[in-house]
Amino acid sequence: VRDPSASLVVVGNEVLSAKVTDENGPWLAGRLRRLGLELRAIQTVRDRVEEIAEAVRRERARSGWVITSGGVGPTHDDVTLEAVAEALGRPLERSDELARIIDAVHQRMFGEPAPETALRMALVPAGTERLGDAGYPTLVCDGVVMLPGVPRFFRYQFDQLAPLLLGVPFHLACVYLRVGEEQIAAPLAEVARAHPDVELGSYPRFDEADHRVKLTVEARDAGAVDRALAALLRVLPEQAVLRVERPAPAEPDRA
Amino acid sequence: VRDPSASLVVVGNEVLSAKVTDENGPWLAGRLRRLGLELRAIQTVRDRVEEIAEAVRRERARSGWVITSGGVGPTHDDVTLEAVAEALGRPLERSDELARIIDAVHQRMFGEPAPETALRMALVPAGTERLGDAGYPTLVCDGVVMLPGVPRFFRYQFDQLAPLLLGVPFHLACVYLRVGEEQIAAPLAEVARAHPDVELGSYPRFDEADHRVKLTVEARDAGAVDRALAALLRVLPEQAVLRVERPAPAEPDRA
Repeated sequence: VRDPSASLVVVGNEVLSAKVTDENGPWLAGRLRRLGLELRAIQTVRDRVEEIAEAVRRERARSGWVITSGGVGPTHDDVTLEAVAEALGRPLERSDELARIIDAVHQRMFGEPAPETALRMALVPAGTERLGDAGYPTLVCDGVVMLPGVPRFFRYQFDQLAPLLLGVPFHLACVYLRVGEEQIAAPLAEVARAHPDVELGSYPRFDEADHRVKLTVEARDAGAVDRALAALLRVLPEQAVLRVERPAPAEPDRA
Repeated sequence: VRDPSASLVVVGNEVLSAKVTDENGPWLAGRLRRLGLELRAIQTVRDRVEEIAEAVRRERARSGWVITSGGVGPTHDDVTLEAVAEALGRPLERSDELARIIDAVHQRMFGEPAPETALRMALVPAGTERLGDAGYPTLVCDGVVMLPGVPRFFRYQFDQLAPLLLGVPFHLACVYLRVGEEQIAAPLAEVARAHPDVELGSYPRFDEADHRVKLTVEARDAGAVDRALAALLRVLPEQAVLRVERPAPAEPDRA
């Protein structure tokens, strides 16, 4: 069983050069949260084997799952599968089953067999599993999930995997303050020190919102959130607190 | 003179936990492109000293400039300045000048001296320079630019730095195709091999756009773009090409 955490590696020349804005990162962040998985890092790197491989290697050490976005097509700049193979220390291997799938899709779309170049997409790290929809499977190898960059396909293929991700839901409490961060930094630091079992965030606002700071208390253990929230309300100046919200934990929305 | 390239490190608990969508990455990608700087990586990491320090260290090896976003406020979860000091192997040092500035801002806003906790923001890596607006300076140390995460302030402080970034503009040509990637992968790979001095991208579309693939040819040398574009048009099947666009290079928009 893998740790309920993930990192995202965006294979991202077009994002870095401002040709497109990445939609997969924000979407995945929300999706993983609802599934009860902690997203620990997003790395956007260039379409280069060694940079992608380095990112995958590093994120495997950080998180239970590594999800890659993009670089799985048939052209010369699609090098993600090769990079993942390198990161995992596995050879690239032609999957006959994937080759059949690619050929079938090509036949359906163009009425002719897939050209050899299209079969490049069938070269995957040895031992890669195909999960979900047999006609459009999600590729997973050693906890690395290789997804296409086109948002529609990224989402479809991620959702095929979601039932396998055994998340643990997060509990959250929010405290809205009418004073600035400088005013509450000391008591806040005290609570953070005394409650290392929660993530305590402080987000200042400088606009016309009704509050000046939003504090967040978050953990997988609801009791830990309760205790840290109570401690926080004890040490904060009473007139500083505008309101407290305790949203219901998101239901893991397994696809 | 630094290499005209940059990496962005987003100090990002609130992005990773889907509380906010990062706006600074997409904005900076466009801004750097227009300034003629290559954005080589974006790393979004948790608000932890060791993870931020590791990201800064790695990105310093990759790019001429490293820009950090967020984690520079007065609360316990603001650890970017400490992490940058660690990455640079410099001690944290209290800047009397920054302390004076913070105090002046606090006096203006609240009519009283800044509390000690606010002065936490004056603890910067030894040798940090203050650039631009004396009342709201941009902090730079060894090519690491430490910007606040609030988008309005991130942009203001980045733009103070922009005149120092000596970029070299990029030239771009786009070729829109009416056939799929499988059809052109082989000639495309051939041109990519023969023209390593350009970045050759291939972006498929699966929607109602008039084209199925957009090819991009990009380099700082306009002649290299011309040569690769000509080679591309020679090897692509004539009926595959829908149109060619050659946008004027973006003027470096120095603030």
